[in-house]
Amino acid sequence: MSRFFGLSLTALAAVATVSTASADGHTAALENATNARHAQMQVIAYHTGLLGEMAKGTTPYDAATATAAAENLASAASMNRIVLWLEGSEQGAIATSRAKTEIWSDASGFEEMAVALETAADAMVDAAGTDLDSLRAAMGGVGKSCGDCHKAYRGPKN
Amino acid sequence: MSRFFGLSLTALAAVATVSTASADGHTAALENATNARHAQMQVIAYHTGLLGEMAKGTTPYDAATATAAAENLASAASMNRIVLWLEGSEQGAIATSRAKTEIWSDASGFEEMAVALETAADAMVDAAGTDLDSLRAAMGGVGKSCGDCHKAYRGPKN
Repeated sequence: MSRFFGLSLTALAAVATVSTASADGHTAALENATNARHAQMQVIAYHTGLLGEMAKGTTPYDAATATAAAENLASAASMNRIVLWLEGSEQGAIATSRAKTEIWSDASGFEEMAVALETAADAMVDAAGTDLDSLRAAMGGVGKSCGDCHKAYRGPKN
Repeated sequence: MSRFFGLSLTALAAVATVSTASADGHTAALENATNARHAQMQVIAYHTGLLGEMAKGTTPYDAATATAAAENLASAASMNRIVLWLEGSEQGAIATSRAKTEIWSDASGFEEMAVALETAADAMVDAAGTDLDSLRAAMGGVGKSCGDCHKAYRGPKN
């Protein structure tokens, strides 16, 4: 830390400039987080889709493919939320966001639903490679956790 | 399985229709996988960006944020590749793809580079929460594995 005491006036002016520009930097950070959440959701949707197609019989059941899809779903679902769900990145504040303010005002309720998806995805990892009936049985939990959270915490289309 | 023996001729015709449409279904599967890879890359880029900004001093170092970013980077990097890198989804075949055919013709080389990113991301998980100097030291491995793989296996912009 000691090197900060050696800052020149020029360097201090540069720090002040960064500080002045922090509003724009903050907005960019919120936009980036929103976009990253959407990418995370796309990863979740893709792998859930692969499992759903097998459950419906649209594609043939394959244990290795189903397990891989479930593993990737679980990886995406369990991502640390503190760098993705930044306060201030709600619908209205960030143009592409559909995140309701309740995500932050009712943080424990949101956390509960996020953990429900993690739990359902973990159950799918165990079920997907067993057989098609097990995969089908585990789909309900995944679908319910998606739907419950979207209903409570996702706003209308922008 | 026994219920399949009770399929009516109408149901069998429907199955035949799905089978006839499999070429389109196959292309859609390759497009979906390509889009999912791009989403995965966006998740990787976002979290690498958070770490890079701390390394450069653009944002202040914070151990919890850095650890969360590293964990999410590692989760995205370690996703099972068999459902993401579908053969046939190379540049030229799929409009948005920049994946070189060498990903499949030199599968062991590609795997080696993918594992290099996993290893670098795991090292970042250990380093990110320690201190800023450790984070900075671990950035090189992450950046190198990104660059090496893109150089060898990513085609020019579409």
